[in-house]
Amino acid sequence: MVRWEPGTRERLQAAAMDLYVSRGFERTTVAEIAQAVGLTERTFFRHFADKREVLFGGQELLEQAFVDGVAAAAPDASPLAMVESALSAAAGFFPAERRSHSRQRQTIIAANPALQERELLKMAALAAVVAAALRARGVPEASATLAAESGVTVFGVAFVKWLAEGEQRSFLDIEREVLGELVAMAAGAA
Amino acid sequence: MVRWEPGTRERLQAAAMDLYVSRGFERTTVAEIAQAVGLTERTFFRHFADKREVLFGGQELLEQAFVDGVAAAAPDASPLAMVESALSAAAGFFPAERRSHSRQRQTIIAANPALQERELLKMAALAAVVAAALRARGVPEASATLAAESGVTVFGVAFVKWLAEGEQRSFLDIEREVLGELVAMAAGAA
Repeated sequence: MVRWEPGTRERLQAAAMDLYVSRGFERTTVAEIAQAVGLTERTFFRHFADKREVLFGGQELLEQAFVDGVAAAAPDASPLAMVESALSAAAGFFPAERRSHSRQRQTIIAANPALQERELLKMAALAAVVAAALRARGVPEASATLAAESGVTVFGVAFVKWLAEGEQRSFLDIEREVLGELVAMAAGAA
Repeated sequence: MVRWEPGTRERLQAAAMDLYVSRGFERTTVAEIAQAVGLTERTFFRHFADKREVLFGGQELLEQAFVDGVAAAAPDASPLAMVESALSAAAGFFPAERRSHSRQRQTIIAANPALQERELLKMAALAAVVAAALRARGVPEASATLAAESGVTVFGVAFVKWLAEGEQRSFLDIEREVLGELVAMAAGAA
């Protein structure tokens, strides 16, 4: 029988992140991560498919939050209002207490071009999922793609702002500010 | 002395594209491409760094067109007007006579996940270059990123429309329509 210790995943993740920062992502081995918390490689692989999943494991949940947010928008919501609802739902993933973890993750990714590419592709996949959710609510192409890509851009810009040194506002407040900036920029051209 | 036959690059490219469509990108070898036009592998590598560059070789020129377009915008242009100028400059890359080549290229990329990833990363790189060009003209963050990402999204949506079966309008006309859609969508939320 496998003993499933509560908090094991979190301890492995914390140890992995510390090693990725101090030694670099490439140079860190799974054996070292497991050793750092007194566990075996086998235990690591029960929680994570590989080293990279420590950093990107939350993607499906984030995508689902966006999709749920689109579905939760009012029946007569515009495409951009649906995206706004999705952004609000996604903000729930980034409470203040996650900020230092997210900063550490960003430091690791910024130091490794392959991880940066992975992050970009995850954002592209997120935009595709949001566009599909919008189409499922009857939004035609190209509006679905335009609204989805705009939403993911707002999310990305808000994320960078949220991580900035000294930033105290909530993720949701920053998302709203950035979406407002986008709307104002486009409205100026209308 | 190397004999530099005019049109060699174009012949190699055409042969490569035909093979990528008929045999698949992965299964095509450089030797086969060269043989198809009666040339050697060495000649291929004088024109292309690898098989992939046949498809992605134009990236630097496209980036430069966007950058030149940003630089050419009026001194008092808004960030979005600078992006509009960049989109106009980029449209010069896609005259009507290039449409069938671009369609063939799209078919090849759609059939290969690794090439799709490469294309997504090229678009992300393009957005980063445009954002840098906007910052160089004094546009502050996050406006530079928002405008640049919006521009590349418009470019991508316009590109798909331009390739659609039966589409006759110019790339520039389609870009303008898509940008107008984005502006109208955002203006509705203002």
